[in-house]
Amino acid sequence: MKNRKVKVLFEPYHKVVEVPKGTSLLEAASQAKVYVSSICGGDGICGKCRLVVKKGAIHTTPTTLLSRDEIQKGYVLACQSRVVKDVEIEVPVESRPEGEKILIDKDAQRFRAFYPIAGEKVFFKHDPLVQKLYLELPQPDLLDNLADHQRLYREIRRHRHEPIMQSGLKVLRILPKILRQNQGKITATIGIRGRTTEVIQIEEGDTTPHNFGIAVDVGTCTVVAHLINLNNSKTLDAEATYNSQRVYGEEVTRRIIYAELKDPDKLQEAIVNDINNLISTLISRNKVKLNDVTALLCAGNTTMIHLLLGLDPSQIRREPYIPVSTSAPPIRAAEVGIKINPRGLLYCLPSVSSWVGGDTTAGILTTQIYEAEETAMLIDIGTNGEIVMGNKEWMVCCSASAGPAFEGSGVKHGMRAAEGAIERVKILDDGEVKYSTIDGVKPKGICGSGLIDSMAELFKAGFINRSGKLNPEATNRIRERDGELEFVLVPASETETGEDIVLTRPDIENLIRAKAAIFAGASILTKSMGLEFDDIDRVYLAGGFGSYLNKEKALVLGLIPDVAPEKVQFVGNTSIAGAKMALLSKETLDKTYKIAHQVTYYDLITYPGYMDEFMSAKFIPHTDISKFPSLVKRLKLKED
Amino acid sequence: MKNRKVKVLFEPYHKVVEVPKGTSLLEAASQAKVYVSSICGGDGICGKCRLVVKKGAIHTTPTTLLSRDEIQKGYVLACQSRVVKDVEIEVPVESRPEGEKILIDKDAQRFRAFYPIAGEKVFFKHDPLVQKLYLELPQPDLLDNLADHQRLYREIRRHRHEPIMQSGLKVLRILPKILRQNQGKITATIGIRGRTTEVIQIEEGDTTPHNFGIAVDVGTCTVVAHLINLNNSKTLDAEATYNSQRVYGEEVTRRIIYAELKDPDKLQEAIVNDINNLISTLISRNKVKLNDVTALLCAGNTTMIHLLLGLDPSQIRREPYIPVSTSAPPIRAAEVGIKINPRGLLYCLPSVSSWVGGDTTAGILTTQIYEAEETAMLIDIGTNGEIVMGNKEWMVCCSASAGPAFEGSGVKHGMRAAEGAIERVKILDDGEVKYSTIDGVKPKGICGSGLIDSMAELFKAGFINRSGKLNPEATNRIRERDGELEFVLVPASETETGEDIVLTRPDIENLIRAKAAIFAGASILTKSMGLEFDDIDRVYLAGGFGSYLNKEKALVLGLIPDVAPEKVQFVGNTSIAGAKMALLSKETLDKTYKIAHQVTYYDLITYPGYMDEFMSAKFIPHTDISKFPSLVKRLKLKED
Repeated sequence: MKNRKVKVLFEPYHKVVEVPKGTSLLEAASQAKVYVSSICGGDGICGKCRLVVKKGAIHTTPTTLLSRDEIQKGYVLACQSRVVKDVEIEVPVESRPEGEKILIDKDAQRFRAFYPIAGEKVFFKHDPLVQKLYLELPQPDLLDNLADHQRLYREIRRHRHEPIMQSGLKVLRILPKILRQNQGKITATIGIRGRTTEVIQIEEGDTTPHNFGIAVDVGTCTVVAHLINLNNSKTLDAEATYNSQRVYGEEVTRRIIYAELKDPDKLQEAIVNDINNLISTLISRNKVKLNDVTALLCAGNTTMIHLLLGLDPSQIRREPYIPVSTSAPPIRAAEVGIKINPRGLLYCLPSVSSWVGGDTTAGILTTQIYEAEETAMLIDIGTNGEIVMGNKEWMVCCSASAGPAFEGSGVKHGMRAAEGAIERVKILDDGEVKYSTIDGVKPKGICGSGLIDSMAELFKAGFINRSGKLNPEATNRIRERDGELEFVLVPASETETGEDIVLTRPDIENLIRAKAAIFAGASILTKSMGLEFDDIDRVYLAGGFGSYLNKEKALVLGLIPDVAPEKVQFVGNTSIAGAKMALLSKETLDKTYKIAHQVTYYDLITYPGYMDEFMSAKFIPHTDISKFPSLVKRLKLKED
Repeated sequence: MKNRKVKVLFEPYHKVVEVPKGTSLLEAASQAKVYVSSICGGDGICGKCRLVVKKGAIHTTPTTLLSRDEIQKGYVLACQSRVVKDVEIEVPVESRPEGEKILIDKDAQRFRAFYPIAGEKVFFKHDPLVQKLYLELPQPDLLDNLADHQRLYREIRRHRHEPIMQSGLKVLRILPKILRQNQGKITATIGIRGRTTEVIQIEEGDTTPHNFGIAVDVGTCTVVAHLINLNNSKTLDAEATYNSQRVYGEEVTRRIIYAELKDPDKLQEAIVNDINNLISTLISRNKVKLNDVTALLCAGNTTMIHLLLGLDPSQIRREPYIPVSTSAPPIRAAEVGIKINPRGLLYCLPSVSSWVGGDTTAGILTTQIYEAEETAMLIDIGTNGEIVMGNKEWMVCCSASAGPAFEGSGVKHGMRAAEGAIERVKILDDGEVKYSTIDGVKPKGICGSGLIDSMAELFKAGFINRSGKLNPEATNRIRERDGELEFVLVPASETETGEDIVLTRPDIENLIRAKAAIFAGASILTKSMGLEFDDIDRVYLAGGFGSYLNKEKALVLGLIPDVAPEKVQFVGNTSIAGAKMALLSKETLDKTYKIAHQVTYYDLITYPGYMDEFMSAKFIPHTDISKFPSLVKRLKLKED
């Protein structure tokens, strides 16, 4: 009875799957299409894939990542557990993707809401990458006997300066019939392919009113798509989803390893499906025909773009960190399975390097650092934490390897900016905790802005010291569990999960590590140019925090350099903003290539002095508080 | 028993095919893959598809195209005959394709032999459209961390000026592995695509010695292919075959009609198969690997190129004669099913118009008319008879609709330049006929140069008068058959077929019509520029006549303008010569686009005065012999 199958029931989804005896619970969940959080991709080291066994027995490997209390309640790590007989499993709230549906709706609204902050319509010429031209070709006669193909080009050139044009056989094969059946009245769809303009489609009559594009932010965690009317630059709708590659690892590196050692196609399939689902939602909701979507532009980090295009990402994680391409060519979207007009084009924004991708290029574009007189710093707090510094004369950048702590990963009750996430926290003088959640519902966990707030407030209240150590004398909210101190942010009575929402010692250490990495990166960039923080005229903070980020508290935490708060500007998701701008303007797309080329990348891991900077930054706000003169003044800090 | 099948045996091939009762013999032959001549494509009007019924009965439509004698011998027209019971058919020599195998071998030699006349190696820079570059990319490190893709471009640009480059995902997908497994030592195959240079292939190590291209003359009758070493411009081998589209009609117009009304795919399939067969013969004979053939360049008339690329040719035959394209884009050869390197490129030389194609562009290129001070005329005597006149300041051209008489079609014993074709004819003072055949074997028929010789000699001997009328008083070789006069060129006793080889009255009329069309075209072009024939400094005669053409006799016939014989130069197959030059030089390919653009096309059918010119030219040499002053002097001609 070797391959005997057993049944696994996943609650609360009522999903049953039959798998061979010995299958891991993580694999079973994947087969049942039940999402279970996992950062390490199944190596038993992140402790995120927590499930509760309700009925039946399981074989599980001992782990230190679950508390005695949790084990007694039936908690197991999905990747470390194998099914041996029929079993009933509960997916606890913290392991759920916060409800795909809820996120999609709310995030879409949120992205719509904060998008204009990133500077829509500000500074680019409307000249979309794919355009429709209505043409009335004069009827040929013996004196004007140009061939259909050349006649078409001549007519296009009467409207536009297009020195280099091309068109495939598929267009030429239908051209004569369409021209003659419509007395020369046709619509040509033209798209930019490098230095060449391609006639990608010919349609009967005037179809120019129907030309749509989709801008996509291909994030490691979330994928955001905006549907755009290419005729007038208007954003018609937005939609977001989790990147379903997460089941293969939450971190970029994990996914590279999965692609390298296991199956790169699965990762491509996952992101292509995500994008196709977003497109299909957007077009059906807005009554747009698939055929009228002629262009898709993706901004994403270098690995995401490699996985999307089916390029081998394996060298990205190995010194000297060489990607296959930092500037992939425009291709037909269908070539990677993306479902828009079958001859529609897919563009990807160029990367600077393996670890500074097209999302950062989009950020530089959106914030206009590359053409400003003043010196600015852009800090994108996402899975990695890319930092760019510069002005129109020079730009330097780095990737801080901060990890996804501020996106809620590696933090026990961390979560992304979605319904029920604690996004603001204040600790009153009497030690009372005030908080607010996204959409005002009962809290489920803490998102990035809530984590920054919490850390700054814990410090200001004296509940943690400069090295992040919890002081159990300071408040009775600090307690011991399994031999570790933790801070109870919200008691079980007030939460959606019915459990206390806490910040543990490892959580605090993770967050300090993440902020130290970012600060050290900012510090290295500044020093590399022989400058001081005082020389920074503006700090742009980007990232998927939702609509809210408390700049003051980011300063207190030492996440960003100590500059006057008015110099700090929260710019939201610059990746999608830049993607839209490039999609809507050939000139702007060209700029992104120049930008990606102009920025000098520093690899922090091998950069002299980075480790010292990082270690020094592992304090709140920093070992050397003289780096935070204004903060010292405001908070009356003293040297330890 | 509606669909009862009957058997048809074709001799001398011993091929049997089973077809439904009522199938035409032409269709049955096609299914048996037995080639039977046909000009009209099955409409019963050309009288070329002659077969002999040896055993069994056939239903046949009465025809005036067979003589009583022939009918008694069992001759039928294949397209007008339907099989009703098992039947045994003999394909007579005149209906055979002169033995595919023989032609291929002999023609290949012939083309090799006369090719240098067309000016190989004369005036182009060696810079093939597809090249292999051996590269040693420096190993990346932290300071030189360019992505593989951009590193490749940088290295290519160290060798060559390539401002605009592109490469598809297929190349990018294999690039990192090949680079690392070979320590950066790779060979990049780069090909010209419009203004862009594409990296079409990456190979391990140094494969540069193996880079081959194929130049193809896609003729209406014959397809000629040359295998070329792209590294040194050397022609390694040549091969020729009949264009197997002939079963769908010998003339261009017939094929257009077939494509339009029946099945365009069959025509594309036929020519693609022909080209694939030529390639496969060439590469196996020369031990070249298919993968090392990276480029194919085709020169052909506009219709042939349309059919090859699968473009709709139907407007080519309708006023105002508009082709789909005069300048088709380079594509991947695999896109039309041509079997070379799967990423290899297919180029087609640009046409001037629907009726002046890339073969003529090749002729202009080869003869250098477009950059000469002197004024030249190029007359290409093929299926149509394209004429170009001009110099570096201006060029005009036309297509004379001469029909394929000089290629042997529409002439009872006409045949192409192949083994056994009579290629030289002399009539001695005593009326004796001297002739020589290709390869010196027993005569099977008369090829183009033999027809020109015969006509001129018949005229000079006084056997035909200026209007081409046979004079039965002049020689006993002129006899009557079925009420028509004919001239016995070779008696049955000397021929391969065991039949007399004759020139009939309709043959002579056809030939005069053909030469008149060409002369009238030449005349119109000259007049259109306000010039006289005297202003022509050089006349180039092109066409697949084999190695021999008697200029003097072409003058006597009035096929070409009366210029001093030393001004006339026979340039052979300029189509293949030009194709090779363009394949071997990017600069030359660029020139062909300029040439095609610069030439002004006159449509003769609608050109004022053309009909008068044509009618006046239907005499030997012309109605107005004052147009032939030198000839008049030499032959002591008098006005009628």
